[in-house]
Amino acid sequence: MAAAIGSPSLAGETQRTDPAPLRIAMVLFPGMTALDVVGPQVLLAGLAGPQLHLVAGRTGPVASDTGLEIVATADFDTCPRDLDILLVPGGDGTPDQMADVALLAFLRDRAERAAWIGSVCTGSLILGAAGLLTGYRATSHWCVRDAVLPLLGAISVAERVVFDRNRVTAAGVSAGLDLALALSARLRDPDYARTSQLVAEYAPQPPFAAGTPEAAGPAITQAAMSMLKELTERSLAAARARRG
Amino acid sequence: MAAAIGSPSLAGETQRTDPAPLRIAMVLFPGMTALDVVGPQVLLAGLAGPQLHLVAGRTGPVASDTGLEIVATADFDTCPRDLDILLVPGGDGTPDQMADVALLAFLRDRAERAAWIGSVCTGSLILGAAGLLTGYRATSHWCVRDAVLPLLGAISVAERVVFDRNRVTAAGVSAGLDLALALSARLRDPDYARTSQLVAEYAPQPPFAAGTPEAAGPAITQAAMSMLKELTERSLAAARARRG
Repeated sequence: MAAAIGSPSLAGETQRTDPAPLRIAMVLFPGMTALDVVGPQVLLAGLAGPQLHLVAGRTGPVASDTGLEIVATADFDTCPRDLDILLVPGGDGTPDQMADVALLAFLRDRAERAAWIGSVCTGSLILGAAGLLTGYRATSHWCVRDAVLPLLGAISVAERVVFDRNRVTAAGVSAGLDLALALSARLRDPDYARTSQLVAEYAPQPPFAAGTPEAAGPAITQAAMSMLKELTERSLAAARARRG
Repeated sequence: MAAAIGSPSLAGETQRTDPAPLRIAMVLFPGMTALDVVGPQVLLAGLAGPQLHLVAGRTGPVASDTGLEIVATADFDTCPRDLDILLVPGGDGTPDQMADVALLAFLRDRAERAAWIGSVCTGSLILGAAGLLTGYRATSHWCVRDAVLPLLGAISVAERVVFDRNRVTAAGVSAGLDLALALSARLRDPDYARTSQLVAEYAPQPPFAAGTPEAAGPAITQAAMSMLKELTERSLAAARARRG
């Protein structure tokens, strides 16, 4: 794994003293969106090396919301106690995770000492359910951002990546790429992030302008909302149940 | 998997007759770049449902070039013989795959009948090594595009996504997202692709303009090239060995 395409490796930098590897934990759960995990994983892996942990209730394959399985390398006990980054993805499985006592306890424990606590997509609802966004500005997938985040004590913000103190939250799915580069720039330096961006050839050219409800227009937004209806309604119910 | 965030599901469309699921096979190999697989997988999964196959030399976990393991669901024998899309990722492991007799035989066989044959990043070098890009316009990661693709009989093109007859190739790593949406629009319809883009909130805002060598400038490009040196040199050697 010499080059680790997409992620400048620490080993590749022989010209200067290598900084210590960052300790990064990314949570996996049944029904996660795989891109929420893999976008940041590819862009941050070079900062972590073997210290990048994929954490779930138990080790082994965890199925995404489209059936792709990623292997968890650590469980809630074996994940290192002290972390530089703790990152939670979203996905169709979010509402169940918002009520998962073991996961929420794990997040609260590691968050006490983690340098950075972050999420991609509806992962912010899981952080919120753990009580970790109370009073923080945060974002989420557009389908739940303004309706559900405030029920969990967060201040919802319609931005792609939101930093507030040591919390960083990203908008839906693909926003994890932007979060990873922004975080990489803060944790290492902007030129490291630029190099990472170039290695991953992240010069996006979406064939359509349809990435936000405003850009997509009412008909496409309605189609998307009907596909996301169950996730939206169940997330709302989970947030209300937690408050009640 | 009700909503399958990031990927409009076939099941969600009750208003009109559901089109038949597409038969999609994505290749996995040791040293693949996980984002090359997962970007398209998330955006195309709704077109395929259970007919999305992750194919490797044998089933089970396959480690990416940054150590993330994805589970292969089929091997070269059990992968369906007739496919709508056959997609090959790239990554640090590319040079070894360019000389892997079993993989190249699998690709040649399925390509004979596949409706679409595609690649992300250095995956085009693997297609080229299988003889599947001879005389085709194609792209690849910038670090090998112009130096290696022509040795494999392809006409290298500096574009993000390149269509030529039933071949579609994407530039480095993150370009798989753009490929998936473009392919989705052709295979289904543009509004389906737009809906998929909105569900994945793909409205990219990279924090830097550094996704191409031209945008990144000479110093960052030099840093990236030194990280990609081994991949570049080994790909070149593999292409020359194939010709010789």
